[in-house]
Amino acid sequence: MQEPEKQVGDDENTLITNGQDLSVDDVSTLYPQVGPYFSDGHRRVDYVLAYHIQKSVNIRRRSSRFSDNNFIQGLRRSLSMRSSRAPLQPKEDPEIAAQEQRTNYHEDDKRFRREEFEENLLETGLELERDERCKIPGIGFLKIHAPWNVLCQEAELMKLKMPTKKVLHPTTVAAPFRLHQKIRLFIHKVTAPLHPKVDANRQDSIKSLSHPFSREKQHLTRCTRAKYSMGITSLLANGVYSSAYPLHDVSMIAMINDQLMFEWASYSVFYKYQPIGLIRKYFGEKVGLYFAWLGVYTQMLIPAAIVGVIVFLYGCATVDDNIPSMEICDSRNNITMCPLCDRACSYWKLVTACGTARASHLFDNPATVFFSIFMALWAVLFMEHWKRRQMRLNYIWDLTGLGEEEKDHNRAEYEFRVMQKTMRLEHSTPKILVTFAIVFGVILYRISIKAALHVSTYPTARSNIRATVKTTAAIINLIIIIILDEIYAAIARFLTNLEVPKTDKSFEERLIFKTFILKFVNAFTPIVYLAFFRGRLVGRPGNYLYVVGSYRMEECAHAGCLMELCIQLCITMLGKQLIQNNLFEIGIPKLKKLLRKRKSELDCKEEEELSKTLQRHEKDHLLGPFNSLNPEYMEMIIQFGMVTLFVASFPLAPLFALLNNIIEIRLDAKKFIMELRRPIAARAKDIGIWYNLLRGLSKVAVIVNAFVISFTSDFIPRLVYQYMYSPDGTMHGFVNHTLSYFNVSDFQPNTDPLQPMHLGYKVEICRYKDYREPPWSSTPYELSKEFWAILAARLAFVIVFQNVVMLMSDFVDWLIPDIPKDISLQIHKEKILMVELFMKEEQVKRLAARDHHYQDNCTLPLSVPQSPPQARSRPISHTNCC
Amino acid sequence: MQEPEKQVGDDENTLITNGQDLSVDDVSTLYPQVGPYFSDGHRRVDYVLAYHIQKSVNIRRRSSRFSDNNFIQGLRRSLSMRSSRAPLQPKEDPEIAAQEQRTNYHEDDKRFRREEFEENLLETGLELERDERCKIPGIGFLKIHAPWNVLCQEAELMKLKMPTKKVLHPTTVAAPFRLHQKIRLFIHKVTAPLHPKVDANRQDSIKSLSHPFSREKQHLTRCTRAKYSMGITSLLANGVYSSAYPLHDVSMIAMINDQLMFEWASYSVFYKYQPIGLIRKYFGEKVGLYFAWLGVYTQMLIPAAIVGVIVFLYGCATVDDNIPSMEICDSRNNITMCPLCDRACSYWKLVTACGTARASHLFDNPATVFFSIFMALWAVLFMEHWKRRQMRLNYIWDLTGLGEEEKDHNRAEYEFRVMQKTMRLEHSTPKILVTFAIVFGVILYRISIKAALHVSTYPTARSNIRATVKTTAAIINLIIIIILDEIYAAIARFLTNLEVPKTDKSFEERLIFKTFILKFVNAFTPIVYLAFFRGRLVGRPGNYLYVVGSYRMEECAHAGCLMELCIQLCITMLGKQLIQNNLFEIGIPKLKKLLRKRKSELDCKEEEELSKTLQRHEKDHLLGPFNSLNPEYMEMIIQFGMVTLFVASFPLAPLFALLNNIIEIRLDAKKFIMELRRPIAARAKDIGIWYNLLRGLSKVAVIVNAFVISFTSDFIPRLVYQYMYSPDGTMHGFVNHTLSYFNVSDFQPNTDPLQPMHLGYKVEICRYKDYREPPWSSTPYELSKEFWAILAARLAFVIVFQNVVMLMSDFVDWLIPDIPKDISLQIHKEKILMVELFMKEEQVKRLAARDHHYQDNCTLPLSVPQSPPQARSRPISHTNCC
Repeated sequence: MQEPEKQVGDDENTLITNGQDLSVDDVSTLYPQVGPYFSDGHRRVDYVLAYHIQKSVNIRRRSSRFSDNNFIQGLRRSLSMRSSRAPLQPKEDPEIAAQEQRTNYHEDDKRFRREEFEENLLETGLELERDERCKIPGIGFLKIHAPWNVLCQEAELMKLKMPTKKVLHPTTVAAPFRLHQKIRLFIHKVTAPLHPKVDANRQDSIKSLSHPFSREKQHLTRCTRAKYSMGITSLLANGVYSSAYPLHDVSMIAMINDQLMFEWASYSVFYKYQPIGLIRKYFGEKVGLYFAWLGVYTQMLIPAAIVGVIVFLYGCATVDDNIPSMEICDSRNNITMCPLCDRACSYWKLVTACGTARASHLFDNPATVFFSIFMALWAVLFMEHWKRRQMRLNYIWDLTGLGEEEKDHNRAEYEFRVMQKTMRLEHSTPKILVTFAIVFGVILYRISIKAALHVSTYPTARSNIRATVKTTAAIINLIIIIILDEIYAAIARFLTNLEVPKTDKSFEERLIFKTFILKFVNAFTPIVYLAFFRGRLVGRPGNYLYVVGSYRMEECAHAGCLMELCIQLCITMLGKQLIQNNLFEIGIPKLKKLLRKRKSELDCKEEEELSKTLQRHEKDHLLGPFNSLNPEYMEMIIQFGMVTLFVASFPLAPLFALLNNIIEIRLDAKKFIMELRRPIAARAKDIGIWYNLLRGLSKVAVIVNAFVISFTSDFIPRLVYQYMYSPDGTMHGFVNHTLSYFNVSDFQPNTDPLQPMHLGYKVEICRYKDYREPPWSSTPYELSKEFWAILAARLAFVIVFQNVVMLMSDFVDWLIPDIPKDISLQIHKEKILMVELFMKEEQVKRLAARDHHYQDNCTLPLSVPQSPPQARSRPISHTNCC
Repeated sequence: MQEPEKQVGDDENTLITNGQDLSVDDVSTLYPQVGPYFSDGHRRVDYVLAYHIQKSVNIRRRSSRFSDNNFIQGLRRSLSMRSSRAPLQPKEDPEIAAQEQRTNYHEDDKRFRREEFEENLLETGLELERDERCKIPGIGFLKIHAPWNVLCQEAELMKLKMPTKKVLHPTTVAAPFRLHQKIRLFIHKVTAPLHPKVDANRQDSIKSLSHPFSREKQHLTRCTRAKYSMGITSLLANGVYSSAYPLHDVSMIAMINDQLMFEWASYSVFYKYQPIGLIRKYFGEKVGLYFAWLGVYTQMLIPAAIVGVIVFLYGCATVDDNIPSMEICDSRNNITMCPLCDRACSYWKLVTACGTARASHLFDNPATVFFSIFMALWAVLFMEHWKRRQMRLNYIWDLTGLGEEEKDHNRAEYEFRVMQKTMRLEHSTPKILVTFAIVFGVILYRISIKAALHVSTYPTARSNIRATVKTTAAIINLIIIIILDEIYAAIARFLTNLEVPKTDKSFEERLIFKTFILKFVNAFTPIVYLAFFRGRLVGRPGNYLYVVGSYRMEECAHAGCLMELCIQLCITMLGKQLIQNNLFEIGIPKLKKLLRKRKSELDCKEEEELSKTLQRHEKDHLLGPFNSLNPEYMEMIIQFGMVTLFVASFPLAPLFALLNNIIEIRLDAKKFIMELRRPIAARAKDIGIWYNLLRGLSKVAVIVNAFVISFTSDFIPRLVYQYMYSPDGTMHGFVNHTLSYFNVSDFQPNTDPLQPMHLGYKVEICRYKDYREPPWSSTPYELSKEFWAILAARLAFVIVFQNVVMLMSDFVDWLIPDIPKDISLQIHKEKILMVELFMKEEQVKRLAARDHHYQDNCTLPLSVPQSPPQARSRPISHTNCC
């Protein structure tokens, strides 16, 4: 319905202030200009609206107290606004949107609308102060203060929970949990240096019983404050106001900001837990949940990275014991291979593939299979862990029992379009189809780019410098990915705008979904191509497949495509993170800030002097606007995809991700505190659609890994050879088994090598990697029985792997309760206490009523049987009976 | 925490009464003896406790009003009881439990406990009346009446929603929905005869705005009543009371009962929708949800049954065009088959398998594949449909926004065990392991029984009467299944008792889970054996596999095991339903009722006369106790398994299920109204663990169907033949292709037929169904390339089928919103109205406060800026400020 944004930060600041016995007034007397207060120094600035001033506008200063005369009229207007009010938090960059539609209204219109809006604000009890001193030329500010009663009223509407006098000490632990408790204490002691030094920790051990906010029950409680304001998105979109934001809180009394600065937004504390409680207090639940999620993800990456490194080291350690690569490197096995390309290439000796074969073993060994299963379960554990963590946070933040927030505001954009009646056509296009069409388009486009690239790089690949080529190809790929990423984000936004979703929530979800699909396809197309298509459809010597005229399909190196896949993954992960982190997340915001300052026509020298005298709301105006958390989430989800989807081919992925995320957390923290305007605190119980995307990814990961292991790696052929064909049950002879025979006289005309004597002797039979009948069988070059047997084994492995891992995942999911035991116990206890409190109050009331012969119409008829029977025959609409 | 049982039936009865302007008093004056009232004829009997009377006990009649003297003492006791009170609804048959532990307490003890409990009841404001006239010898009754104020108090505790004065007319439909609305109206008109004729329908179009029950807000509302009582499970378990139940409501004013009788619990209305609203009013949400679920399931079975019949008819229609069966039946294809058993059997002609082959086609044709996919999606649609229906019911029944009910009462049994300190040992056994061990035990046991059965039936199978044998085997199987079912239910209960789960909820869930696993394994072992194992491991002529000495593993008929699977399924479904419905659900309850009457020592002739004079609570005492809905659900879930799991092999399953369920609904209805005591109305938002089991089943169904199609049916071999091996791209020659050659000289000694000349000519080469190399190849009798190719195709099909269907399911799941559009719109609208109401009240209050110079400590300091600044520096514990 409505989303009355809750500004938790402020509430708690006040509490902390109170705790230190520093009253607001003391401070505002000390720093009359610095603190974010109205000019009277008493009322705190809770929210700021900025707008462009025209010189011609006659500035009317109004009294900040609304007169009571036309109250009924105002009430009616206020009610009609309420039902359609939009959320405060702009879902898209409000300034961009504003610029787009700025021409829709004349300046007079805008002023008129501002006045109307401000009147309505006053009617709801908010207090306003205008600041048009123009320190930043052309910008006027409207400072808003929400008084206590407005906050209380809104809190009740939002069903915010308020802490009661009753405090819960979790010391009364039942007997079976005592050992558990001791272990937990021990762990807590050990990990003590990892916890940030913030005050919030102290309060962890005590929890107030909380009760949905109700003024009738306020005598039971301490009071909580909450911020409240109304529909402004459309005004922002129409350019009536240019921006709307709450203020960063750097005043001395805040303390939180300082603690956040030193214990969170600093690289030096990278090893510590984040002070999630403080983050939530300062930025609200939504941002708090993002950082909590990021923290849990990073934390969970630690074991994954360790196991990944161990698997990699296992590969390194066993590389010399690996019989197939030993056989390849053994020059006594004098195997002549068929040429890798037509005409230009000649026969080559298998021993030259020795290096690649040894390197491939690093990523293609039995430990990889184990690691894939491990990572599939890891993903499930991660989801479970997060669910529990979220539940715990919900409990600590008193969000339990909160119903689903219905954020079904109509978008301003939507209403605008409906007005123009232009939506008929767009609405009739099947939406989903658009998305899918685009996705397929992207795939085709990517493949054609790939083809073009490889066609151009191929001629240089004649000599043995394939690795270099692969690396350059991967880098080119990376650059294309990054460029396309930006383009696709724009496409997704464009497409979603075309659809004109009705509500903000559906707009956001559609946009996220589209962006995700496009970015995902973009990031993973080359990887999927390498893993599953490259080298599959090459044909065979004498009957190669040709595309685009006469280009042969690419082959992989002898030991499969796993090696190339690995290089691609490595470069994509490293490069994407480095470039996106450094360039996009640090560079571009700084550039934007610079531009914004220049735009506000301040001279550089004046600026420095001015910046000291600028008030908080003016300083914040120069910061970048906070758009949304979606890009941050998106980046992490793509990374999660990299970590889980192709983990079978690149066990170091979790390590890379871990290193990146440790930096990412602090980088985001710095950005949120210093580079961006303070986001409006939004209440949220969970991370929304992102959780579903994560779950989808971890499901897809299972099947992708199954295919990577069985089709991209040589794991299954090795197993089949060992147990079905090996004469002595060992891997000896495996390499020979995987190579088919080709009679060079069967080359198609003009495809035989130009230099047949390249190796120094005449070749009659060359070998190629495939399972086909030899030239001397009755059906030469047909797929052999071994091929079908191995194919069946591969497919069987996929089925077994997929179902076993899915079963295990479901089992783990079922085994771990979604709500942590201690939290559910606490909730239970709280409910009992609440009932007791309620009952006690009840009994006292009843006693009082009885003592004072209190006559209540409702409780009378049945509780006092002496009453006349006629009292019980109530008419159906006994409206006033109770 | 606690589960204050809500007796919705009663509340609504009162409302209906009021609507007809018949006051309770009018009626009680008319029928002073018949209606369920106290002897004063005014107070309604809401609940009855029954107990055994000892002759020696001095019956103390107490005043039904508790004196206020020792009030504080009582309060303390009542509070301490509250925190540990157990739910009213006994989870196991309380009388059985009572009998078990009856010896624990002496009669004096029991009387003392009864007195203490009754005192506590009085303290909470309930009113009691004792009835020890002993019309049913040896049984005393305690009638309980819950007065209005107790109901109100409990309703607030339960956060029951109460209808407000504000009424929502769903006529104000937005423009885009108008057409939609018209269509709905049309559908409603067409289906009008399907709707039961009950009053509740009239009210569907009007809905009161509801608000969580709060006495402070009662001036806004009509009042709702709710029943409340406290911990009695342990008293029942200890035999202090013998039973506890609310009364059936047959008094004239109820009307509901009559309507339920004629519009629900009657076979003549089998084609109508159920009056779910009335069922919920009379029995409570939990039972209401069961019948709603059963209704939705039955309704969804209609399309499934229709498609199933069409698929079956398609099979019938195409049986003459089926080339493989034509080839088998063509006597010109003079194919000699190898003997089906050692020594006794001889060679046989393939043409004799003609009948089976034609019959197999009915269940093994391309339409079956389509039907499997259809049913997988059907299952998803069913789940989605149910979710939406449940949401709609939640909305109509005002359960939206209701938090999760925490039913974490400690079980009386658990507390008892803890007291005895016997639980150490049991608790240390890993629980889950126990379950799994049992499951595997069951499987082994079943297989050995199977083996024994088949060993004994085999010798009769020499001639061609296999179908008869199959049928008898299936019937024997069925009988074993039914017998074992009862045993397993006992085992599951025993195992769960061993585990001593802590809470009622976990006890119930564990019990359900165990029972489900055991019954499921029991019902499906023979089917799984037939589908996937029979005929797989037979070996080949000359090298058969032998088990238990010299018994050859069973082979299937020529056209696969699908036919036998089909017979087994058919008999299991029909037989299980017939026997369980008729014998267990109708016969046994009647028998029990008879026994109970005899036990209460009434002479047959007296009985008839007495039954007329018996009061309602005495009549109800003679009915069977209501245990739980679990057996009903369990039966349906197993049926759902039959319908979805092996639907590929038996397309008529949905039809059978549909026919059964149409009867089942009315049967259950009759049972609930006439055979059983009225269950305590329990509030429930959903069907709990059953939903998860259903979802699990529909997931398993996908993979099982994939395997049935690819491995049990001949679908894949046919496809492979057609596209890889067929010379002309048709199915001609398929039968020949599936048969391998065997040279009779390769028989192992003493396994060749005794009558080799049975067919009239000497056989040198016989054929058998397998893909093996012929005797003249270089590797005779080894699996051929065709075998591996077909195996690969089968496996590939499983992967594709599983993932495509899963993807489609997820897509459907994602496409259909969980909350129906109109309901979410309504909820939205309601919220807005609620806020408006709230705001209006607010404004009026504020106005009043201003007018009367109302001074409130809480709202003062910030809202009136003229207040002295000192007022704002509140100490941290400003407990009395608001």
